[in-house]
Amino acid sequence: MLAVAFQGPERVEVVEKPGPELLAPDDAIVRVTASGVCGSDLHIYHGRVQVAPGFTLGHEYVGEVLAAGDAVSSVAVGDRVLGTFHVACGTCWFCRAGQFHKCDHGRTFGHGAGLGDLQGTQAELTLVPHANLTLRRVPDGLSDDVALFAGDVMGTGYHAIQGAGMRPGDSVAVLGLGPVGLCAVQVALAAGAAHVIAIDTVEDRLAMARGFGAHAVHLTEEDPRAAAKALTEGRGVDVAVEAVGDARALDLAIRLTRKCGTVSIIGVYAERTEVHMGLAWIKSLNLVGGQANVIAHLDPVLALLASGRLDPGPLVTHHLPLADAAHAYEIYDRREALKIVLTP
Amino acid sequence: MLAVAFQGPERVEVVEKPGPELLAPDDAIVRVTASGVCGSDLHIYHGRVQVAPGFTLGHEYVGEVLAAGDAVSSVAVGDRVLGTFHVACGTCWFCRAGQFHKCDHGRTFGHGAGLGDLQGTQAELTLVPHANLTLRRVPDGLSDDVALFAGDVMGTGYHAIQGAGMRPGDSVAVLGLGPVGLCAVQVALAAGAAHVIAIDTVEDRLAMARGFGAHAVHLTEEDPRAAAKALTEGRGVDVAVEAVGDARALDLAIRLTRKCGTVSIIGVYAERTEVHMGLAWIKSLNLVGGQANVIAHLDPVLALLASGRLDPGPLVTHHLPLADAAHAYEIYDRREALKIVLTP
Amino acid sequence: MLAVAFQGPERVEVVEKPGPELLAPDDAIVRVTASGVCGSDLHIYHGRVQVAPGFTLGHEYVGEVLAAGDAVSSVAVGDRVLGTFHVACGTCWFCRAGQFHKCDHGRTFGHGAGLGDLQGTQAELTLVPHANLTLRRVPDGLSDDVALFAGDVMGTGYHAIQGAGMRPGDSVAVLGLGPVGLCAVQVALAAGAAHVIAIDTVEDRLAMARGFGAHAVHLTEEDPRAAAKALTEGRGVDVAVEAVGDARALDLAIRLTRKCGTVSIIGVYAERTEVHMGLAWIKSLNLVGGQANVIAHLDPVLALLASGRLDPGPLVTHHLPLADAAHAYEIYDRREALKIVLTP
Amino acid sequence: MLAVAFQGPERVEVVEKPGPELLAPDDAIVRVTASGVCGSDLHIYHGRVQVAPGFTLGHEYVGEVLAAGDAVSSVAVGDRVLGTFHVACGTCWFCRAGQFHKCDHGRTFGHGAGLGDLQGTQAELTLVPHANLTLRRVPDGLSDDVALFAGDVMGTGYHAIQGAGMRPGDSVAVLGLGPVGLCAVQVALAAGAAHVIAIDTVEDRLAMARGFGAHAVHLTEEDPRAAAKALTEGRGVDVAVEAVGDARALDLAIRLTRKCGTVSIIGVYAERTEVHMGLAWIKSLNLVGGQANVIAHLDPVLALLASGRLDPGPLVTHHLPLADAAHAYEIYDRREALKIVLTP
Repeated sequence: MLAVAFQGPERVEVVEKPGPELLAPDDAIVRVTASGVCGSDLHIYHGRVQVAPGFTLGHEYVGEVLAAGDAVSSVAVGDRVLGTFHVACGTCWFCRAGQFHKCDHGRTFGHGAGLGDLQGTQAELTLVPHANLTLRRVPDGLSDDVALFAGDVMGTGYHAIQGAGMRPGDSVAVLGLGPVGLCAVQVALAAGAAHVIAIDTVEDRLAMARGFGAHAVHLTEEDPRAAAKALTEGRGVDVAVEAVGDARALDLAIRLTRKCGTVSIIGVYAERTEVHMGLAWIKSLNLVGGQANVIAHLDPVLALLASGRLDPGPLVTHHLPLADAAHAYEIYDRREALKIVLTP
Repeated sequence: MLAVAFQGPERVEVVEKPGPELLAPDDAIVRVTASGVCGSDLHIYHGRVQVAPGFTLGHEYVGEVLAAGDAVSSVAVGDRVLGTFHVACGTCWFCRAGQFHKCDHGRTFGHGAGLGDLQGTQAELTLVPHANLTLRRVPDGLSDDVALFAGDVMGTGYHAIQGAGMRPGDSVAVLGLGPVGLCAVQVALAAGAAHVIAIDTVEDRLAMARGFGAHAVHLTEEDPRAAAKALTEGRGVDVAVEAVGDARALDLAIRLTRKCGTVSIIGVYAERTEVHMGLAWIKSLNLVGGQANVIAHLDPVLALLASGRLDPGPLVTHHLPLADAAHAYEIYDRREALKIVLTP
Repeated sequence: MLAVAFQGPERVEVVEKPGPELLAPDDAIVRVTASGVCGSDLHIYHGRVQVAPGFTLGHEYVGEVLAAGDAVSSVAVGDRVLGTFHVACGTCWFCRAGQFHKCDHGRTFGHGAGLGDLQGTQAELTLVPHANLTLRRVPDGLSDDVALFAGDVMGTGYHAIQGAGMRPGDSVAVLGLGPVGLCAVQVALAAGAAHVIAIDTVEDRLAMARGFGAHAVHLTEEDPRAAAKALTEGRGVDVAVEAVGDARALDLAIRLTRKCGTVSIIGVYAERTEVHMGLAWIKSLNLVGGQANVIAHLDPVLALLASGRLDPGPLVTHHLPLADAAHAYEIYDRREALKIVLTP
Repeated sequence: MLAVAFQGPERVEVVEKPGPELLAPDDAIVRVTASGVCGSDLHIYHGRVQVAPGFTLGHEYVGEVLAAGDAVSSVAVGDRVLGTFHVACGTCWFCRAGQFHKCDHGRTFGHGAGLGDLQGTQAELTLVPHANLTLRRVPDGLSDDVALFAGDVMGTGYHAIQGAGMRPGDSVAVLGLGPVGLCAVQVALAAGAAHVIAIDTVEDRLAMARGFGAHAVHLTEEDPRAAAKALTEGRGVDVAVEAVGDARALDLAIRLTRKCGTVSIIGVYAERTEVHMGLAWIKSLNLVGGQANVIAHLDPVLALLASGRLDPGPLVTHHLPLADAAHAYEIYDRREALKIVLTP
């Protein structure tokens, strides 16, 4: 089969590999009909996350079940399915508590030996361990493009909002309008935010957020704090989503949030960071964060996609054949695309 | 001033009364510009809730602050304001816990001596005790018709949904499409319900719910259980709102709800009722209910009304002058109106 | 092997049966060292729950793993283990939501074909499906007698209190001091109840509750409502646990509970029941109930047992050899025992 | 009257001042029978929190109501009462949401103009604004020494544990065993922690925590991380309470906490701090913190104190007459005392 392999920093190649085989009774093999290129793929592309040469990339996918072990009951051979970006064992302490994203035996597709040694989904075929928890039938009428978001980007947007305890009538700020930030904007609005303030420096992304119903605010040409105050009688927002992953964004998120509000940190942190704990403390903020629990969110996210209440379709800016993956990574690296979908 | 007085079963009259005076430092007097006629007024009208002859009716209102005691800080003389259907002391055990609807010293407008002896709001002027907690400025651009709903009917719809812990992506059934049921439909949709099943026998009300985005299901000509199953892969709805207040509706609500789901009982109960506890128990349902905590919900409800995400405007089917209140009650009693607004 | 078989109403026999065999990769076989006789066994004994003649009874057990399928990872052959009264698949919609007690494929030990056709644990050997979720190693130092409670009676006591959202400083009433009620008393005290009012008519049980730290109140010779008022400044208790399962107990629970409090219904209901919905509604009560989610509670319950903060040891009033099971059922049926432990 | 006045860094004097007068209808005047010296008083004593010379210090107190305005209903003249360290208006947005500690008009006793210009309680008399929310009758049988803790230190311990969502059976680490840390240890145990790991470097404080039932661990001579792992099967604690207020303690708290656990930051932060956000993010931790909402916690804390389930009595190491306040501050500054109680 064809697969997109990492070969070294800023070098991906489409290579021929042997197809996967079922190894455990709850494994499935999926013939991939669409896979996404995602911001976290770029961390590998640039060598910040280390992956062995030849490893298959990708963790977003939609496809058809080609084979399934005896213990697979949630889907059947021939089903059109989507999956989550990582798999979970379903029985460890964390899975029993519903915290599938922190599974003691969790494995992430396409992220190398450090995250479970699970070959990626930018390929013609992909092996899916623990298929019962991670695979779901695609609801009728849902396109591959939209279904692709359920198990990663939109699940993360849902996590950012629900994990923060947002309630209908709240005001929300979203800092950073990449695909995750834009999905968080959609989820906040779908969940009944009275106001969503969407903050970025890229005009196209601001325009897209505005189209979804947000108050778009340019980070440097406008004043986000004034906007937050104006919409909340001076209090600040109930929830700020930090979808960038740097200290300045976190600082602004802390400043935008009202006393006793929540900062939902979905942008990735890997290091020590200077945080204005004095301000967070005096305001009694909750800082919540980390990777999204997409398995837990999969059912409601699919219901919202299937009913049309969430629609990430506009985020897909490019479709390319799998064979052109190297080109896709170049485009994505130049930030010319929001979401690229690879097809066989 | 003119006031709508209860004079006996099915007999209301507009009478001349002396205007109210400030009695406590946190009292306000409001010149009423719009007051509503509500389903609970009919309980009094029919003599099921006992009120002394001559007592002023009504508990929904919008108006302008005419006078305010020294301790009133949330609004000022001249402000355009709305209020809640009851007032709360703000300092008893229940108020300290935020359960304002169960205040030990709570008083309901227009419900006679048994509920706090507080004259109603279907009048030219109304005395508002504990004004800081109950009055709020009407946001710019909000009509009297819409603002009128914040402190009673829409606050109750919000309570029905939020009190049930509904989450974005859930499925919701609403049984009974009077004004409260229709508001619950709107809140469920605004809060991100993937599906709302709206159940009644009156075609106009079903049509209105359909217009809001619900799946309208005729109680007797269609099969609500089949509808609930079809939309939820056979599980049943996550939340059923019982907005009727009788044993058959409660029974259906229990049947429509999935295992571990919630039945939110906003319809009024006053007596012993046969309940299928066996079914509720085997399904591990939560039954939550009672009057709405409209004071607690006032800020988010107003934010949703002001942002246009909730719009009860279509529910207002009649405007009548205060002087024609007797006629208004007759129309309402014949169920020819959804919401009647009285104006001076 | 020897096994306790139901042979007809009020007739159990110890019979010789072939031992179980592993059928699925996540099955285990446990050599039982202790099994309990429980109140729900009496429902079968009296024929109220129908079970085919020859079916093995029992659902509480501690033992040693004799064999395990390839997919069993939570325990190993030779481990001393305890299990829960039912098993769950771990992958259906309800299991994914952590509601293991409502698993679409749940099976209860020793309850016949209607509840999953799973032979009981009052036997020398027992087959344990889905062993990863249901089996746990017995912490060092914990006796069989105590460990036996983790997966059923104490898990139910924990559910009654935690499912009701009890907070430290709350007041709790427990109606019915059978084993579940007494465990609920212990959990409430361990969880920081300021007061626990324990209500029954049996003096021994009242004395035991008093020994645990509760205010024991005789249902008919004392006045439970007066006791609840005296301890709560007249408000009523925050949580009432209904551990009887009849309409009169539910009625008293509703009366004892403060406005906006919770009635936690752990006693079994199977039919329609007259409920004072009027009182529940005017008080804005939450009625929560149903079987306990013992799989979800297993880790915290074991931690509390292992640390000695919960100790159901005093509830074990009788030990009998498995061979004397018929006698054990007779004693239990005459209510001469609180908990009988059968040993090989 | 006599009052303890701040006169400059490390200089307090007992001075004669005119007694307070009622200024608002919900004011009360309390004759103080006991007031505490607290860690936050030292911030003023050392000049880190700026207070004008002559300002009365202190914010912990028990006493008798000497006078009360017309609107005071929660207590009466002659009542023996305790109060909280700050007062709240009861009607602003935050008070309506039950977040009294973030009241827009909150005032803290004895902290100078910056925190509401409210004279302190280390005096013979103290003026108590908004008495209904802040004053409560002392339950019968409770000593002044114990009651003194309800409105400040024990309320803070309760906040640290409840605000973190601790559940019965959880494991808790408390870093820093000053009075707040020791109270958090007591609350965690009362609330059903299976294990509490109490960490400090002062042997007396470790011994006291051990006496309460905690696993005492010397910060530098033992290995807190090994202790946390040993008690939690390697996972880490469910909740870590940071009761120190510095970056190293926060770092250790983040390391001790399991994936998806909570760090409850009750130690005071005023500045920017380097935080290991990478570790917090990869572990999906919740960081919650800030001043305690003691008004909200007052009822449950009093219930726990009155029932004897919490007992801060052992923390009171010194009693001194008000006239010797200067000496008390010297002792406290030398860390020779845990809690000093001043009496008239």
